[in-house]
Amino acid sequence: MQHQPQREQTHELLKARGIERALFANIATVKWLTGFNPPIQTGPSPFLGGPPLVWYENDHWTLMVMDWQTVNAGAFGEQENCALASYTGYTVDQPLTGQVKLRALFREIVHTQLAGKIGIELRDAPADIALSLDSLSRHEHRAAELIPIDTWLDPFRRIKTPEELHKMRDNFRLTDIGHAAARYAVVVGAREIDVWNAAHSAIERAAGQRVPLGNDCVVGYRQKNDGGWPLAYEIRAGDSVIVDLSTILHGYWNDSCATYYAGEPSAKQRAMHRTTERALDLAISLVKPGAVAKEIDSAVREFMRKEGYPVYWHHTGHSLGVTSHEDPRIVPYNEMALQPNMVIMLEPGIYFSGETSVRLEDAVLVTNDGAEILSRHDKSIG
Amino acid sequence: MQHQPQREQTHELLKARGIERALFANIATVKWLTGFNPPIQTGPSPFLGGPPLVWYENDHWTLMVMDWQTVNAGAFGEQENCALASYTGYTVDQPLTGQVKLRALFREIVHTQLAGKIGIELRDAPADIALSLDSLSRHEHRAAELIPIDTWLDPFRRIKTPEELHKMRDNFRLTDIGHAAARYAVVVGAREIDVWNAAHSAIERAAGQRVPLGNDCVVGYRQKNDGGWPLAYEIRAGDSVIVDLSTILHGYWNDSCATYYAGEPSAKQRAMHRTTERALDLAISLVKPGAVAKEIDSAVREFMRKEGYPVYWHHTGHSLGVTSHEDPRIVPYNEMALQPNMVIMLEPGIYFSGETSVRLEDAVLVTNDGAEILSRHDKSIG
Repeated sequence: MQHQPQREQTHELLKARGIERALFANIATVKWLTGFNPPIQTGPSPFLGGPPLVWYENDHWTLMVMDWQTVNAGAFGEQENCALASYTGYTVDQPLTGQVKLRALFREIVHTQLAGKIGIELRDAPADIALSLDSLSRHEHRAAELIPIDTWLDPFRRIKTPEELHKMRDNFRLTDIGHAAARYAVVVGAREIDVWNAAHSAIERAAGQRVPLGNDCVVGYRQKNDGGWPLAYEIRAGDSVIVDLSTILHGYWNDSCATYYAGEPSAKQRAMHRTTERALDLAISLVKPGAVAKEIDSAVREFMRKEGYPVYWHHTGHSLGVTSHEDPRIVPYNEMALQPNMVIMLEPGIYFSGETSVRLEDAVLVTNDGAEILSRHDKSIG
Repeated sequence: MQHQPQREQTHELLKARGIERALFANIATVKWLTGFNPPIQTGPSPFLGGPPLVWYENDHWTLMVMDWQTVNAGAFGEQENCALASYTGYTVDQPLTGQVKLRALFREIVHTQLAGKIGIELRDAPADIALSLDSLSRHEHRAAELIPIDTWLDPFRRIKTPEELHKMRDNFRLTDIGHAAARYAVVVGAREIDVWNAAHSAIERAAGQRVPLGNDCVVGYRQKNDGGWPLAYEIRAGDSVIVDLSTILHGYWNDSCATYYAGEPSAKQRAMHRTTERALDLAISLVKPGAVAKEIDSAVREFMRKEGYPVYWHHTGHSLGVTSHEDPRIVPYNEMALQPNMVIMLEPGIYFSGETSVRLEDAVLVTNDGAEILSRHDKSIG
């Protein structure tokens, strides 16, 4: 059953709060609730009428998408209590009014008398749809009320299901491939964008399809050398290059980072790399059920400080899933305790602005008594 | 002045309709009004609090974006009557509540007593912001009223400014490069994804930065051989491959299509290719001010029919700009007349499902007395 436990949990929550109807409009929530895997976006498409929406009514779930996107819903619509509803996006017979058709479909599906509490993701719901629900509830003098439910499902999303872990494991094989190609491409005279291209091409060729790629590819002599998109900076002898790769597969994100060197690393770079390896090992060793996010964070920062390095300004780590960065964040304020089946990224780094930098990152799954490493890319100095 | 004519036109329109305040929330509108060039998206980012928004008040314009995106606004904030306002997206000091911070920023900026007509892009505005405007207007018993202004600016967007044409001309050089690489990569044994990669890499290497790439790369023996994302289909001797490339540069889309062959094209393929070239020439020859979209469409379809080929099911062409497909669409129902400074894509094709297919596409600028071809990729049979 595609993403069935997700809907069960959500149903229980809504029931407990007395909510019989709800509109989900956040794309992350929609993916998580249904397993919907939207096509790669390069920008808002006029062929899409509007965002995918999920309407919930007493444990019945309707996913509303544009006709061409029904293939991205997998077997969702064939499941019990689930329906896939679509509207025309592209046509040559009339103006592209998918936006209007989505609204018509919505009115068709939400045909009931609206009463009671109506949950709604208010930050992402299209305003006109929310206003129509609001005015429908008010004008009929019914006891209906809109309840904002933004972020309500975030706590559930932290614990990955076996189905989700399967998707994510698959995805980590792609970044492993990207890193192997990036390591090989870091040579004197190449530019950041060339390294990026090598990684991206290797990933897409292995996957046999387009794969969206994030995050960073920056040479050490940049002033901001902790991250950024690849540009035309040329790699010189002895330069470090931070390569931080995220791919999306089956609708789920992964993440990974390594640092490569053009030619022979200096003694300083070797020491930095070694310290970062030890910091990452330390971080991984602290991961287990009950470990507190902020304590892992402070232990790794403290290690860096004791080693005599400037302490990185960014997070020590984070979780991820249908988005690229989720709780538990491994950051100074976070008192959240780790639980089995959370996936945690850990990524300490050392940065000397305009000179050289290093960051290493692994993904771990919190197990019943520790951590299993999910990423397998080579992070050694080579 | 960055996108100044766009705001002038919009101001005149709103004034004429008695609208003193307005909220723009559609990403295409926001780009068009401000010149904002959002970073490449690979999915919704938790570091972004919400969509970029523009608040208009008596010809004063405020663009609201996450702090890391201010670099994407160019010189917008330095112009008269324009302000760039930002809120914290990423931080390790507190939870990622950019969504909440955007709302706080909005309340700060929209501090006036709301009266009169308030324009709002209701289909894209976040529901909670719209509801707060709505309730603010109602609860204070003021004569304020929300006026939906979705699609109001579409007619303006059809006529490109010199600044926009400069951005678009730049962009067409990138697809020219992509096509040259794709043509070279179509060989026996290569797969669609390999051809795609060759084009994408060539484009990004030339640009020295990441460039989002759309549209199609499909081998002729696919059942649906008129379009689709590249997959692992292998190219065999004599196969045709439709390569339809769109890049985004400076926030603007382009488009382009050619068809390549592995080895020697058959007599049937040569005839199809030649007919499609003539159909494209015919289409281009019909472009001039006053020409009616549906008449161009029917003339090209009629030509195909007379040549004895099945008439393509899709549009004959379309305009584009801050999105990939805009009016005037060259389609059967469209009675719109062309005007100078419109940019029109033309793309006739012939498809024999599961066997072979061809499509050729050029971009033209409508001039005072005809058309100037903007795309320069080689569309010959080779």
